[in-house]
Amino acid sequence: MPISLGELATQFGCELIGDPDVPVSGVASLPNAGPESLSFLASAAYKKQLSSTKAAAVILRASDADDSPVAVILHDDPYACYARMAAVVCPPPTYKSGVHASAVVVSSATVADSAHLAANVVVGERSSVGKNVYLGPGTVIGPDCMIGDDCRFIANVTVVRNVHIGARSIFHPGVVLGADGFGNAMTPDGWVKVPQLGGLRIGSDVEVGANTTIDCGALDDTVLGDGVRIDNQCMIGHNVQIGAHTAMAGQTAIAGSTIIGKRCMFAGRSGAVGHITVCDDVTVAAVTFLSKDVTTPGTYAASFPADDARSWSRQVARFRRLDKLIERVTKLEKGSKSSSD
Amino acid sequence: MPISLGELATQFGCELIGDPDVPVSGVASLPNAGPESLSFLASAAYKKQLSSTKAAAVILRASDADDSPVAVILHDDPYACYARMAAVVCPPPTYKSGVHASAVVVSSATVADSAHLAANVVVGERSSVGKNVYLGPGTVIGPDCMIGDDCRFIANVTVVRNVHIGARSIFHPGVVLGADGFGNAMTPDGWVKVPQLGGLRIGSDVEVGANTTIDCGALDDTVLGDGVRIDNQCMIGHNVQIGAHTAMAGQTAIAGSTIIGKRCMFAGRSGAVGHITVCDDVTVAAVTFLSKDVTTPGTYAASFPADDARSWSRQVARFRRLDKLIERVTKLEKGSKSSSD
Amino acid sequence: MPISLGELATQFGCELIGDPDVPVSGVASLPNAGPESLSFLASAAYKKQLSSTKAAAVILRASDADDSPVAVILHDDPYACYARMAAVVCPPPTYKSGVHASAVVVSSATVADSAHLAANVVVGERSSVGKNVYLGPGTVIGPDCMIGDDCRFIANVTVVRNVHIGARSIFHPGVVLGADGFGNAMTPDGWVKVPQLGGLRIGSDVEVGANTTIDCGALDDTVLGDGVRIDNQCMIGHNVQIGAHTAMAGQTAIAGSTIIGKRCMFAGRSGAVGHITVCDDVTVAAVTFLSKDVTTPGTYAASFPADDARSWSRQVARFRRLDKLIERVTKLEKGSKSSSD
Repeated sequence: MPISLGELATQFGCELIGDPDVPVSGVASLPNAGPESLSFLASAAYKKQLSSTKAAAVILRASDADDSPVAVILHDDPYACYARMAAVVCPPPTYKSGVHASAVVVSSATVADSAHLAANVVVGERSSVGKNVYLGPGTVIGPDCMIGDDCRFIANVTVVRNVHIGARSIFHPGVVLGADGFGNAMTPDGWVKVPQLGGLRIGSDVEVGANTTIDCGALDDTVLGDGVRIDNQCMIGHNVQIGAHTAMAGQTAIAGSTIIGKRCMFAGRSGAVGHITVCDDVTVAAVTFLSKDVTTPGTYAASFPADDARSWSRQVARFRRLDKLIERVTKLEKGSKSSSD
Repeated sequence: MPISLGELATQFGCELIGDPDVPVSGVASLPNAGPESLSFLASAAYKKQLSSTKAAAVILRASDADDSPVAVILHDDPYACYARMAAVVCPPPTYKSGVHASAVVVSSATVADSAHLAANVVVGERSSVGKNVYLGPGTVIGPDCMIGDDCRFIANVTVVRNVHIGARSIFHPGVVLGADGFGNAMTPDGWVKVPQLGGLRIGSDVEVGANTTIDCGALDDTVLGDGVRIDNQCMIGHNVQIGAHTAMAGQTAIAGSTIIGKRCMFAGRSGAVGHITVCDDVTVAAVTFLSKDVTTPGTYAASFPADDARSWSRQVARFRRLDKLIERVTKLEKGSKSSSD
Repeated sequence: MPISLGELATQFGCELIGDPDVPVSGVASLPNAGPESLSFLASAAYKKQLSSTKAAAVILRASDADDSPVAVILHDDPYACYARMAAVVCPPPTYKSGVHASAVVVSSATVADSAHLAANVVVGERSSVGKNVYLGPGTVIGPDCMIGDDCRFIANVTVVRNVHIGARSIFHPGVVLGADGFGNAMTPDGWVKVPQLGGLRIGSDVEVGANTTIDCGALDDTVLGDGVRIDNQCMIGHNVQIGAHTAMAGQTAIAGSTIIGKRCMFAGRSGAVGHITVCDDVTVAAVTFLSKDVTTPGTYAASFPADDARSWSRQVARFRRLDKLIERVTKLEKGSKSSSD
């Protein structure tokens, strides 16, 4: 169902320069946009694509409006405005309420009438599934879980036990929530498993990417605040706490009992060792891990980007001989001192 | 069902100082413990929490006993003692034997009467499932597998084919056992798949964390010894051998054909390249990978923890100019030599 | 069903030196081969195992033929020849066509008569499954997908939506194809999800390892060319493009919108940041990430292999004091200059 440019602009309180009756039925990048596509210009890097776009309209900053060959919707933050409008133009799929014949809901569980349980879903003892929740095919909800209203589990998600989730959170395939953390005590007879008895508490408006794992706590709970965004293949250890609106890109790992503040940003394959505390508003660069408490907001880094392999080998060889270099300098200093005596 | 302090102490041969009739119904950290909670003090870092605990009893070393405001259970290794007692106080869930109506067991497979197969479990050709095994929802056991007694597969575990597992091993959701390793031969027409025909042999008392993958061998088997503990999102390549009681924390990766000794410890995101041999009792620090044979027990490391991003940039720039620095020192040495001539 | 050495040699146009009537029923490494095993010698490192092999025949280069105690099959590339012959001697399992009673295929989906859908498979709206496709237990194909002929999905694979796949591609358990990429716009109210509306296009003869995730595009598609080989636990972000015959070993990650050329090779735990372009024929060493465009074919590296932990600590300390060392050299240079004045 197309929406008109005028309706869109009105709904989000934006100024539209152009024909309000033009219908929009999709979204596209500037070069691929057609006459019913909504597009956007957020970064100067793409400015050169503006002049030849065929979009119905482009969301952009007022300062870029004069360069557009088509209608424009003005917004100071075109990317955020695009994100919101795209969700209206191309809404996520909707599902009829109901429980598929192949789904298994034990008698002690409760499922809201408006929820949709797809094929092969399992809901365990004493768990509850809220209103309008979507549990995609193969999703397993173990015992003692609470799934808040409007949550979506795309498919094949596993929620082990004692996991409570707020509203509107989204979990992609292969996510594992509330599995046992890594707790082992060494004894003369080998490792003894330390029972993992805590739960997992996840806030509202959280999104967790494919194949990410978030463990339950050992004694107390693992906790994710509201609005946390976690990408694919991230690993959140037991008893970790993550503050509201913190985001973590792919393959990030946070080891057990570490506390991460609010609005932190972890780039790809970054992380933190266990048992440290990281304050609010910390950014961690790609392939970098925090090894101790961070008490000052800011950006932290420690990685070497790729070099030509031969150059890198030479560089490593020099690095390995730093002690020799220091000795040589020390010797020179002594010589220099004695020569100046 | 609570157990009394006296029964607990007797069962594990520990000295109890306090009322043996006090019931224990749960476990908790020192600050969160209530009057029916068992707690423990293993690390000096938590000593300050002891004086205000409300626990029923605290497991601790004799040297800490005098500082406890509540009953104590004495043990030289309080953490290991706690691990064992916690498994008694809060035992893992038990399951009635039986096969869920939705489970699919092919006729050539054998399943022990005492096993529990949950919803949507699949057991393939010629596979056998031992006594008291728990196969959680969605678990797939492929053909030619042997699952030892008392193993537990929490949910959505995939065991591909030709995987033999000892007794009492635990596999968390998303684990994949016995998938094809990465074998490809380059030809003028592109890659040709090298058939992966070996199996996977896993010992007893092994535990494998969520979304970890352990490949089958190319020709011979991949092998994990007894008591091996592997955390989430680890990657064990084809034909790897891991010695008994070795432990690997999250995101560790061992590339193909590498042989790891006994009682090794790999910290988070560590690993080893392929085709090397690592002796017993090797510890690998976080975010560190072994690149060649290790023949001496000990700790190995090679990572840079995060720095303030600006400092790090400067440091990298200096590193990149090490050759210039060496040239300058060489020039000084020549000058020094000629001046002393 | 054994095949004779003569038939094998004829089928692949190889010269056989030995009795053509000897039957071959399996493959094995040189030391483990028995009288019906086919083996191979591809690397000089294994040459010493040749003299005592009991194999039916060994595939090797003509220059090694005289040293074999058994029959030989000559080929300039013994490993590739072995890969092809092994697939004949030990062919992958075959499946009868048909749809398991527990599989769920919606009415708008189409499934070829020759396809095999195992237990608990789900096929969604408007999707099509080609000839001879194998969908293993628990595999979920979402809406609007096209699965090409002869593809194999081993088990528990999730294909989210709008994923098109060519012929003969193989997907191992836990793979997630076409999940939402990580798109979030920061606003004063927290993150707003950017709808992920592109698809995923995968070529023919592709293989993807266990628990790897490949996201759909944000607007345009994510694209993998023909013959791409990806190992376990790799992470391919939204709008990435990967050229034909590129291979990536375990835990490799390619961040969003990066374009990778043809015939590239990424070693284990390597990767690339987002929004860069990498030309054809680039090799990236283990644990190395590319941070900017690569325009010259060749090998790129940047990692430090493990060192004895004490040596490493000293080395890091020296590295951290590089500025001091530079100061000392500068001071010496000044002194040297003044002393030579």
